[in-house]
Amino acid sequence: MDPRPAAPAPAPAPAKTPRWYWEDFTPGLVMDLGHAAVTREATLAFAAQFDPQPFHLEDAAAEASLFGRLSASGWHTCAMTMRLMCDGYLNDAASLGSPGIENLRWLKPVYPGDTLHARMEVLESRVMNSRPAVGLVRSRWRVTNQAGDDVMTMEGWGMFARRTAVAAVGG
Amino acid sequence: MDPRPAAPAPAPAPAKTPRWYWEDFTPGLVMDLGHAAVTREATLAFAAQFDPQPFHLEDAAAEASLFGRLSASGWHTCAMTMRLMCDGYLNDAASLGSPGIENLRWLKPVYPGDTLHARMEVLESRVMNSRPAVGLVRSRWRVTNQAGDDVMTMEGWGMFARRTAVAAVGG
Repeated sequence: MDPRPAAPAPAPAPAKTPRWYWEDFTPGLVMDLGHAAVTREATLAFAAQFDPQPFHLEDAAAEASLFGRLSASGWHTCAMTMRLMCDGYLNDAASLGSPGIENLRWLKPVYPGDTLHARMEVLESRVMNSRPAVGLVRSRWRVTNQAGDDVMTMEGWGMFARRTAVAAVGG
Repeated sequence: MDPRPAAPAPAPAPAKTPRWYWEDFTPGLVMDLGHAAVTREATLAFAAQFDPQPFHLEDAAAEASLFGRLSASGWHTCAMTMRLMCDGYLNDAASLGSPGIENLRWLKPVYPGDTLHARMEVLESRVMNSRPAVGLVRSRWRVTNQAGDDVMTMEGWGMFARRTAVAAVGG
């Protein structure tokens, strides 16, 4: 038997220092979140799993619908936009999640073959009353297609660690 | 060579007659949309594709986060709820899509192992001004976990064909 005590589990690798804390999301800030291609395969796969309404799964049903042809689930557009948000800033920010979304509008159908383009604008910002180390940021996200038409807009609060609070804890 | 003209493409199978038209969604109606099990595999797969924030992908990062342990993306909860909506009534209704969502609230984390339970309540109903054959229904959806806690609520308008308008077109 080895008399040495068991080695402690290795500490998790330290997360990289975020580039953006709450203080950086000042009202008026606009960020370009880049583009996403909408494929037929991904449209059908998402619909089959989460939104199997005939107009999201079958060409004939889609052509007979208000959408005119096969279109992506609105929730798929949300999910694709979330990916652009993660790649565009959240995964380089001290992001702590979100309590919700307002004014989610599916303004035009999103079709396979479309290229989405997402942008965010910071609307307001404040410290969280119940957690002073956390700041809240209200943003508006706007998603356009390759024709420049708005296909989806939404607003919502995000929670971010405060840089000053982190420094205080570290010191 | 076969001199007969090519047979026309078979007509699409007629969609089954919906059980529910706009008229059936009367304010105060409550529908139970059933249950969905949240698996670790599905949680990780959705996060990897659409919401790759560390607290949705890695146990250690999740334990250090406000969520306390690995939790599902809020958009995954929306998508799972949409599936319950489709299975619970939309795919047996004359559903025509939705223009958007209000007051989407992620109230508590959704964890792998949870069982979600969704319900909808009709809040109000009116004919669409620009399309008199279409009726609008505003509903509230409420999603609870196995402890009975609300994990997500949202409200939104759905578009449905009117039974009377359909009958007029058919006659």
